[in-house]
Amino acid sequence: MPMPMMTTPLTLTHLMRHADQVNGFAEIVSVTADNPRHRYTYHDAFTRVRKLANALARLGLKQGDTIGTFAWNDYRHFEIYYAVSCSGMVCHTVNPRLFPEQLEYIVNHGEDQWVFVDLTMVPLLESLQEKLPKVQGYVVMTSEAAMPDTTLRNAHCYEQLIEDEPDVFDWPDLDENAPSALCYTSGTTGNPKGVLYTHRSTVLHSLASIAPDVFAISVNDVILPIVPMFHVNGWGLVYSAPMVGAKLVMPGPKMADGETLCALINEEKVTASAGVPTVWLALLNYLNQSGGTIPTLTRLTVGGAACPMVIYEQMRSRYGVDVQIGWGMTEMNPLGTFNGRKPTALESLPEADKAEVSLKAGRPVFGVDIKITNDQGEALPWDGKSTGAIKVRGPWIINDYFHYDGQTLDDDGWFETGDVGCIDEWGMLQITDRLKDVIKSGGEWISSIDLENAAVNHPDVAEAAVVGLPHPKWTERPLLVVVLKEGSSLSAAEAPATLLRWLEGKVAKWWIPDACEVVTELPHTATGKLSKKDIRAQFSNYQWPSQPVSPD
Amino acid sequence: MPMPMMTTPLTLTHLMRHADQVNGFAEIVSVTADNPRHRYTYHDAFTRVRKLANALARLGLKQGDTIGTFAWNDYRHFEIYYAVSCSGMVCHTVNPRLFPEQLEYIVNHGEDQWVFVDLTMVPLLESLQEKLPKVQGYVVMTSEAAMPDTTLRNAHCYEQLIEDEPDVFDWPDLDENAPSALCYTSGTTGNPKGVLYTHRSTVLHSLASIAPDVFAISVNDVILPIVPMFHVNGWGLVYSAPMVGAKLVMPGPKMADGETLCALINEEKVTASAGVPTVWLALLNYLNQSGGTIPTLTRLTVGGAACPMVIYEQMRSRYGVDVQIGWGMTEMNPLGTFNGRKPTALESLPEADKAEVSLKAGRPVFGVDIKITNDQGEALPWDGKSTGAIKVRGPWIINDYFHYDGQTLDDDGWFETGDVGCIDEWGMLQITDRLKDVIKSGGEWISSIDLENAAVNHPDVAEAAVVGLPHPKWTERPLLVVVLKEGSSLSAAEAPATLLRWLEGKVAKWWIPDACEVVTELPHTATGKLSKKDIRAQFSNYQWPSQPVSPD
Repeated sequence: MPMPMMTTPLTLTHLMRHADQVNGFAEIVSVTADNPRHRYTYHDAFTRVRKLANALARLGLKQGDTIGTFAWNDYRHFEIYYAVSCSGMVCHTVNPRLFPEQLEYIVNHGEDQWVFVDLTMVPLLESLQEKLPKVQGYVVMTSEAAMPDTTLRNAHCYEQLIEDEPDVFDWPDLDENAPSALCYTSGTTGNPKGVLYTHRSTVLHSLASIAPDVFAISVNDVILPIVPMFHVNGWGLVYSAPMVGAKLVMPGPKMADGETLCALINEEKVTASAGVPTVWLALLNYLNQSGGTIPTLTRLTVGGAACPMVIYEQMRSRYGVDVQIGWGMTEMNPLGTFNGRKPTALESLPEADKAEVSLKAGRPVFGVDIKITNDQGEALPWDGKSTGAIKVRGPWIINDYFHYDGQTLDDDGWFETGDVGCIDEWGMLQITDRLKDVIKSGGEWISSIDLENAAVNHPDVAEAAVVGLPHPKWTERPLLVVVLKEGSSLSAAEAPATLLRWLEGKVAKWWIPDACEVVTELPHTATGKLSKKDIRAQFSNYQWPSQPVSPD
Repeated sequence: MPMPMMTTPLTLTHLMRHADQVNGFAEIVSVTADNPRHRYTYHDAFTRVRKLANALARLGLKQGDTIGTFAWNDYRHFEIYYAVSCSGMVCHTVNPRLFPEQLEYIVNHGEDQWVFVDLTMVPLLESLQEKLPKVQGYVVMTSEAAMPDTTLRNAHCYEQLIEDEPDVFDWPDLDENAPSALCYTSGTTGNPKGVLYTHRSTVLHSLASIAPDVFAISVNDVILPIVPMFHVNGWGLVYSAPMVGAKLVMPGPKMADGETLCALINEEKVTASAGVPTVWLALLNYLNQSGGTIPTLTRLTVGGAACPMVIYEQMRSRYGVDVQIGWGMTEMNPLGTFNGRKPTALESLPEADKAEVSLKAGRPVFGVDIKITNDQGEALPWDGKSTGAIKVRGPWIINDYFHYDGQTLDDDGWFETGDVGCIDEWGMLQITDRLKDVIKSGGEWISSIDLENAAVNHPDVAEAAVVGLPHPKWTERPLLVVVLKEGSSLSAAEAPATLLRWLEGKVAKWWIPDACEVVTELPHTATGKLSKKDIRAQFSNYQWPSQPVSPD
């Protein structure tokens, strides 16, 4: 019996054709190493995508092959995304900030056949190429005029590569479950693991992410994705913006440059943006110092790490920008929850309560099932108090890491995120910790993230970390480790007592750390997150003060 | 090799579970024959859905069975939708306004095993039941107290049926392509044809329809679906509102009652609504006469027929309500295009031009491919001028009518909508005619809809139809047929010349009808549309005036 309704596959090819035909008029504006402000339309972009697809075929690349990219957010990277995925190949976006051994592992494990490389990263690839025997050649993403001398094997210039190709291409019919892109997570232990996105997972994620309570992207929007395209497909914005015809503004290598971001926002009339807290702190610093404003920007999305209250407060009160939170991870494509428009009861809270609610991780995006479980794996109630391990499933959640021997899901088919949190009666998720960083004291869990957020709000604290260290009576107790701000008037001697006192009334009394240590620097991972593993190692022989604060 | 990403099926069961867990707090408010204002939450609703699912199983119903509904928009109909579809059965919504022979055909062709019937429609079913031999029993959607004496065979009371059932149910795992609902189109010729929606088509349609440029539904919205749930699933609003947690307000049998609608909007703080033009004219009349206002309503969607300018103008200028247009049909679940938020260039047009653009059918919703073709089936350019037959395809477009011997799609796999139109460079579709009503004059097409819209804007015209009649020189020429408003000062003798003159400057000169006839009534189909077939029959021996207006 034939299907009653069409079963049109959910592919990026379909998305591309829609964007080209229906939204072809919308613009993509890019900063690149060879052009401070490149500007063209989606229609122009997809015309060049077809030329690039012809070039890929000419290079001998076939369906199923993997193509690596070392690139920033710009129009050529956008073209590569679509030409590769819609040709049935896999677009493997590599995070150039990883350590060289990780980069080598990732390119080899991903079996990248060719690598597209940004002008600024040519030296990096030159230093790596001897370790990348499977890579057949390199394409430098630049014009003929800017093409550098390079020792890269079989190096091509992007513009020359596509110049003479026809702008028509016979796209293959793809299965919606065919892979489209590959992105590695760099855990703090073991080798990076690859997440292989499919056309279906990407299209569904994009469709869910444009909803009014999520990114809320309209044809009228101008989107500035500051989250890198090598980091979970730039949170999908390079798919969702074309889906609705929103103008895209791409900052290229200038992602953490407050001045460039401010100029792009004002000159291109950016309405919405998304990035990690570091980026927003850079922009805030620039605005506060320069006296600049960003009147067209209506909202920004913070993800990738907990959002400091200062971003929320200053962006809203000084610059009129609403701050929204997204939570997810590479294995989730990335969106799991979003804190944008909230249920009316929460929207109408008094400002202080609303600020607190607004910094939570948000409500589940349609498509994502979430549960929180206790140590026995039993689901906990959504009461805003019960805290447990967060597990997810749904059509854009990982099923199996790429070429991986271990077990990706738990025995019930859920993906364990490694995050810990609680969910309230409004479906609002609050992340309280990483499972591996949670502090178990006297049989209860203490949230290191809550303590860090409270500590970092002290005007003299630049950065704070809380780790659990062994304790004879309570199994573990929290230690607060801080970096003081440059020019802080607090002395290292008086800081501990001052900061521990600062926490009083802000967290449960028994959560207050037993001690505080001042350091000049905290260790970070390659992606900029606090490396608690290293902090715990550093304090592995720590002696608690003789009179610890009693936890009861 | 295992799938890299989860392939979680897109089912209404998933949607229901999401709505129950994440959005359970949101309300459903209903008007029913037995309660002027019933109120409960989604969580309450889905608890009763599980009781009903147990009751269906107890009645012996199985996966694949069809359940008929004769019902208005209310909470019990909502419960039936989910209990039936998520049990793997097919929810067959019947339009009670069809002719008895059509109702008999539809219930028998749909193979309805049981029928749920609203209190107000019990007499209708009593009169039909002898012709419905396959129906095993009837459930009257009411409380025990309001249960009527009835001659219906094997009649149950809804509340008694579910009363003692457990509120847990083990939902079956369904294939996403399993059928979920059935709705018949009543063409003007031949038997009605059934469109069998699937879980996948419904979930994807819902997800696409909540987007900011479509219905733009948020958890903060209060939605009043005035389009009946027996008409293409109430345009999907009974799926999309729970998907995001919007409050639902259901008018029950009071769908064309301006006073009830105004009261519901104000008392329940409705923010968005959707319905056919007739409903909005009723509401406008009530507001204009009563001096009422509807300040919470931000936008309304008009579909099902061309939107008269008076609705757009008065709703915006007098009541501050934005008017948006949706275009589609039963075979499209129903959304094909939507005219809500528009590209910036169109949003910033001068008001008169913007009004004209705002009444077009809109831009393709993501997921729907559209083409317009000439008589040779060749795709025409999107230049705003080239007019042709509109064809569609996509994951919520029909593939095969239910138990149908004919061919549903064209040879290239597109569904021919029967509508005629053009699309401009912004992707904006304008419907100019029905293919069977288009007037071919001198080798060119004349839009009967444009002529009717222009004629009906005359203050003395209550309703207007334009049909093409044979003409010795031009193959066909248009005839304008009008009903004058009650109390019109125009005499039947002077009306034709006055109205034809009225059209001058409003349409191309050669489009102006060769004659105008005044009638007291125009024929309509069972769904309230003009029956042009009957009008053409009525004027089949028409003699053109001796001095026709020259078309050149």
